[in-house]
Amino acid sequence: MTGWVKIVGLGPGAEGHVTPEAQAVLDDCTDVVGYIPYVARVPERAGLVKHASDNRVEIDRSRHALEMAAEGRRVAVVSSGDPGVFAMASAVFEALEAGPEAWKALEIEVIPGITASLAAAARAGAPLGHDFCTINLSDNLKPWALIEKRLRLAVEGDFAMAFYNPRSKARPEGFAHVLELLRETCEPGRLILFARAVSTPAERLIWVALEDALPEMADMRTMVIVGSSRTRAIAGTGWVYTPRFVVEPGAE
Amino acid sequence: MTGWVKIVGLGPGAEGHVTPEAQAVLDDCTDVVGYIPYVARVPERAGLVKHASDNRVEIDRSRHALEMAAEGRRVAVVSSGDPGVFAMASAVFEALEAGPEAWKALEIEVIPGITASLAAAARAGAPLGHDFCTINLSDNLKPWALIEKRLRLAVEGDFAMAFYNPRSKARPEGFAHVLELLRETCEPGRLILFARAVSTPAERLIWVALEDALPEMADMRTMVIVGSSRTRAIAGTGWVYTPRFVVEPGAE
Repeated sequence: MTGWVKIVGLGPGAEGHVTPEAQAVLDDCTDVVGYIPYVARVPERAGLVKHASDNRVEIDRSRHALEMAAEGRRVAVVSSGDPGVFAMASAVFEALEAGPEAWKALEIEVIPGITASLAAAARAGAPLGHDFCTINLSDNLKPWALIEKRLRLAVEGDFAMAFYNPRSKARPEGFAHVLELLRETCEPGRLILFARAVSTPAERLIWVALEDALPEMADMRTMVIVGSSRTRAIAGTGWVYTPRFVVEPGAE
Repeated sequence: MTGWVKIVGLGPGAEGHVTPEAQAVLDDCTDVVGYIPYVARVPERAGLVKHASDNRVEIDRSRHALEMAAEGRRVAVVSSGDPGVFAMASAVFEALEAGPEAWKALEIEVIPGITASLAAAARAGAPLGHDFCTINLSDNLKPWALIEKRLRLAVEGDFAMAFYNPRSKARPEGFAHVLELLRETCEPGRLILFARAVSTPAERLIWVALEDALPEMADMRTMVIVGSSRTRAIAGTGWVYTPRFVVEPGAE
């Protein structure tokens, strides 16, 4: 039997966002590996072995998946959203690169999913309809100075911004700093979306002006989208969008 | 009968990337509106009316969709990839904002899809596994000076970058300028992915070092991903990924 590792994106939560390609892998694998709440989303069936682990053990989990594949098992490594966006794909490749030479011949596939930023944007309208940056605000794996530098450059370029992991338990003050930085560099009416648990029964969306944004509006299940200076709300509706065009300088 | 407009992402091309949520809309609508090749991807069925139009008429097409919904029809506006990323969602909201007041009460929904950048990244490994920028290189709707400014800031922030619409027929020299700018600002070994027609039978992926990149490697069906300075190829495999972590300055 030939083993494999397929790194699967489950989408943000709703069954309707699980692609047929992802579903086929879940139906065909012998083992599911991942963070506890994501493994729980895969239905039990005869012959399927679940290996759920806690957060912050991504490399151990990846090594385990590769080891099992080398033994001939068909292993699905599951992530919420898309596996390539602040999720398990990079971790598996890190483990592959550092691991035994024989692993490099293993069959590996990455199965894309609906990522949280695009699911949140869809519920809100089209705030990411123009150029945007996708930034992980967690400082577990990078220094705060780099986060701050990237935020300042993204504002200078007038990109819209999608923030993953806005508030970590380990450093809850980080997101308060982010809001301070945005208040220094953007106009007070800049639109910010807090989209919690998108596509699940617990979904909650709030649009506020930057001057009204509070750190407590975000937690680890919240996607934060900051509009560009051109992002606008449509009066009389709940919709927010960023126009596709930018007028030539001087023409406005 | 109550009409609606649902703005649907079909994913980059493969049937296996069409979400069940998107499929349900295609099965339930009375009308499909969109650019000719995307409308062609929706199977014919009794009672379904297709309205295919050429490129660059996004606002006319959006107005038509909203008019039909106001008359009680159930209209799917289809885009390739995700409708919120350089696709139809912003155009529909532009038309909604400029249109008759009555349209604002219409039922509208945006159905997210697998966007081309994430599908391309998945085929290549995990090049977008750390912070990244998503930039439309077409200068139809924005001045070249703004594209150049954003590219320089994205390089300065050491973001990975995903480029949509790298080469337009109207201005094929634009992408040559982009490569020149990258050569001025990045190291020669910086990795660039050219991913054409991802997930279709015509798919073709090429990774090259920046110094070997040629403008002709891209066309309008190509997604271009430029790695950050930390993006690496795994020797002995075809995989490329961006590590999740950045070492603290001075610790390396």
